[in-house]
Amino acid sequence: MSLSMYQASVPTFVAMLNNLDAILQKAEAFAKERKIEESVLLNWRFTPDMFAFTRQIQIATDFAKGTTARLAGAEVPSYADDETSFAALRQRIAKTLSFVQTFKPADIDGSEDRDITLKLRGEEIRFKGQPYLLRFALPNFYFHATTAYDLLRASGLGIGKLDFIGPI
Amino acid sequence: MSLSMYQASVPTFVAMLNNLDAILQKAEAFAKERKIEESVLLNWRFTPDMFAFTRQIQIATDFAKGTTARLAGAEVPSYADDETSFAALRQRIAKTLSFVQTFKPADIDGSEDRDITLKLRGEEIRFKGQPYLLRFALPNFYFHATTAYDLLRASGLGIGKLDFIGPI
Repeated sequence: MSLSMYQASVPTFVAMLNNLDAILQKAEAFAKERKIEESVLLNWRFTPDMFAFTRQIQIATDFAKGTTARLAGAEVPSYADDETSFAALRQRIAKTLSFVQTFKPADIDGSEDRDITLKLRGEEIRFKGQPYLLRFALPNFYFHATTAYDLLRASGLGIGKLDFIGPI
Repeated sequence: MSLSMYQASVPTFVAMLNNLDAILQKAEAFAKERKIEESVLLNWRFTPDMFAFTRQIQIATDFAKGTTARLAGAEVPSYADDETSFAALRQRIAKTLSFVQTFKPADIDGSEDRDITLKLRGEEIRFKGQPYLLRFALPNFYFHATTAYDLLRASGLGIGKLDFIGPI
C-alpha cells in the first residue's frame, strides 16, 4: 500500500505517545522508589532558559493533537496546561491518544496540499499539508519527545533507546 | 502530489543534516571564543552510560545514509567513525549529504513493501520499507539529532529550536 498522510501521522503519534506513557510510568515508580519529589523531576531542565520536563510533554502532545486536527481540517482541542504530577501528564497523553485515534485514513489522506495557517510568536505562517507534517510537525514532535526522554535519562532513570523507539 | 517514500526520507534528511551542520559551525566558533577544548564538547554526555556528542552525530548520519541506501536497495557506505574535531564531523555530514542526494525519487518511491533486514545487537530484524522508515529510521534519526542539539544547548551554546527545525 502506498504511503499516505494518515500513515505518516496518526500511527506515528500513537506509537510514540504510548512509548512516552510507558516511560512516564517508569519515571513515576522511580520517583517513588528513590523518594524524589515528583515536582523535582517535572521541573527538571538542562539549563535555565530551556523548557522543563512538564512543558516538553505538553508541547509533544500539542503537536500530536494539533497536527492531526489541522491535517483533517478539524478544530484543535485546547488543554489547560496545568499538570503537576506524572499521573496528570499520563492522563494528558491518554486524552491525546483518544483524540488522535478519532481520525480515520479518509479524514487525513489527501491533505498534502491543504492550506494550514499557524500563529508562531505572533506571526502567521502558511504551509501546505505535506511540508507542515514532514518539515515542521514531526521534527518538533520528536524534538520534545526526545528532550523529555533525555531529561529523565540524565536524571538516572533506567531507560534505554528501546523504550523511546518502542515495539517494532 | 501524493506523499511518497522519497519525499518522506531524502528531503527530511537533507534539511536536518544541513541544520545540524549549521549548529556544528556555531559550536566550533563557540569553542574557540570561550577557549573550550573541542574534545571537551565532543566527548560531552548527559550521563556516563549515554553516548557522547560525537557518537550522536555519527549515529544520526548513519541513519541518514543507511535508510536511504536500504530503501533504494543500494549498498550502505561504511565510515571509519574516527572524527575528533567539529571540522571532521562537518565533513562527515557533508559526505552524508552528498550520498543521500545521489538518490532520485525513482530510486526510493515504491519501497513501501521492500524487505529490509538489519542486524541489531547480533539479532536479525526484518522490516517492510514503510514501517522501517516511519517507525524505526526516522525516530532514531531524530533521537540522535535532538540529543546532539540538547548536549550543545546544555553546554551553553546560544542556539534555539529554530536552529534545529531550520528554514521552513
